[in-house]
Amino acid sequence: MNRILVVGSMGLDTVETPFGQVQDVLGGSATYFSVAASFFSPVSLVAVVGSDFPEKEIAYLQSRKIDTRGLVITPGKTFRWKGKYSYDLNTAQTLETQLNVFAQFKPVLPPEYQASPFVLLANIDPELQLEVLKQVKHPKFIACDTMNYWIEKKVDALKQVIAKVDLLFINEAEIRQLTQELNLVKATKKIFSWGAKHVVVKQGEYGALMFSQGAVFSAPGFPLEEVNDPTGAGDSFAGGFMGYLAKKGELSEQCFRRATIIGSVIASFNVEDFSLNRFKRLRYEEIERRFTEFKRLSHFEETL
Amino acid sequence: MNRILVVGSMGLDTVETPFGQVQDVLGGSATYFSVAASFFSPVSLVAVVGSDFPEKEIAYLQSRKIDTRGLVITPGKTFRWKGKYSYDLNTAQTLETQLNVFAQFKPVLPPEYQASPFVLLANIDPELQLEVLKQVKHPKFIACDTMNYWIEKKVDALKQVIAKVDLLFINEAEIRQLTQELNLVKATKKIFSWGAKHVVVKQGEYGALMFSQGAVFSAPGFPLEEVNDPTGAGDSFAGGFMGYLAKKGELSEQCFRRATIIGSVIASFNVEDFSLNRFKRLRYEEIERRFTEFKRLSHFEETL
Repeated sequence: MNRILVVGSMGLDTVETPFGQVQDVLGGSATYFSVAASFFSPVSLVAVVGSDFPEKEIAYLQSRKIDTRGLVITPGKTFRWKGKYSYDLNTAQTLETQLNVFAQFKPVLPPEYQASPFVLLANIDPELQLEVLKQVKHPKFIACDTMNYWIEKKVDALKQVIAKVDLLFINEAEIRQLTQELNLVKATKKIFSWGAKHVVVKQGEYGALMFSQGAVFSAPGFPLEEVNDPTGAGDSFAGGFMGYLAKKGELSEQCFRRATIIGSVIASFNVEDFSLNRFKRLRYEEIERRFTEFKRLSHFEETL
Repeated sequence: MNRILVVGSMGLDTVETPFGQVQDVLGGSATYFSVAASFFSPVSLVAVVGSDFPEKEIAYLQSRKIDTRGLVITPGKTFRWKGKYSYDLNTAQTLETQLNVFAQFKPVLPPEYQASPFVLLANIDPELQLEVLKQVKHPKFIACDTMNYWIEKKVDALKQVIAKVDLLFINEAEIRQLTQELNLVKATKKIFSWGAKHVVVKQGEYGALMFSQGAVFSAPGFPLEEVNDPTGAGDSFAGGFMGYLAKKGELSEQCFRRATIIGSVIASFNVEDFSLNRFKRLRYEEIERRFTEFKRLSHFEETL
């Protein structure tokens, strides 16, 4: 059982999809990630919220055995995001972003966190991601996530992060934008040349491609009959992936493959409901059952 | 070894992609289908071309052991299609369509074709597809393909076709348009309620979903480093699928799954070059090798 350090955003989201809407609900990359990972491994959280952040949500994270000693509560308002999805559910339209206390976020690791063997740098300013890396001691495995905003504003810092991590989580549009290369195989080779050893390309409802140097694995998306809110799907994917990897503590190709499926499993639950509502009632047996369903979904006999 | 009857279009294509262009080259749904299927099973072709159609291309089809007694050569010009793809390669922009002799196409099956056990109604007017079904005797398995044009113009005839076939090949955008249902699982259930027993949803570079009543199988797309021309990928997919199914003559779930992978394998070769150029130099050993690569691409161990 290895502990995972996660550094990222926590916030309150207002989301509208064709299937409903919610206001000021629990959200943020570190939040989705931590809870998703907590089904498999203990998590140490570094983030900032304002004094308006609901205490019951902190209690919820603690009930998931998430260490919140690194969660700073600052006078002021919590980060807020307002977004809308149309029927295709693949891309969010951002209606409003209020950075609030997140604008001054300077991640400081409590001493107890510094030796975390697994590290996930969730989607924040790559300069802050570099600051975190200076504070960790002998990590076994580091992964990072990012988004188009940082690709546009801070590509050099982002490339420095990629040079220092083992794995990059990124979606299709972002890897094309970052590498200026439309073909995913070629784009991934470029990322490898910058230093990362694994690249997981998230493809939304189509699943994910996990590239290692010399091998590629394709995890399907789960054909769901009910999708209500895709918010946090990518962070949940990364959480399931890293949680499983840390639990196993094994960095083999087969382990990365199962971690990719687990990422898809966890993301497939998350999109069934708004905010983290599905996670709040998710049982481990359901994860096991859906993992088996993924096996059935993609299995075929080898002999032609 | 079961023979497959295919009825569809043959034409001369002029295609431009970011990677090159070709003029008046071999194309058409029945052409891609026949050649793709011929790697596995004998094919009987019903189509029409004009007197300007190159004899060497007919000789090529015959060299693939495709029975061309049902290919009518009519005075006049062959069907022509002109299209263009931008960098994403997912959707063709049609620049020009000349129906020419195809406008008067009335498929008539030579007597020798009428007892074909496997039948593929490629993308043509659904009223003509119904005419073909009247002429076949005791087929074992019938599949059809269609396109947005017929969904818009002749949806009632198309639904009659779907009621009479075992399997529908359709792409994502088309099934949504046809069923007025965005969720693919729900859309497929609607198709089942109209009569087809299997639905293969083609997802371009993402692969395909094969729905049977009670089961779903996901075939990945193959991460290719070189994609030059996606024209005919869907027809090649259907050709590989049906060719393999006819070769095995077995209508089991496991056989449908392998057929779906073979469809992806064949389509992945086709897009590597313009027109049918890749097929013209494709060897069976390459198909076997890529089938094994697909297995490697999607394999993960079952134990969590």
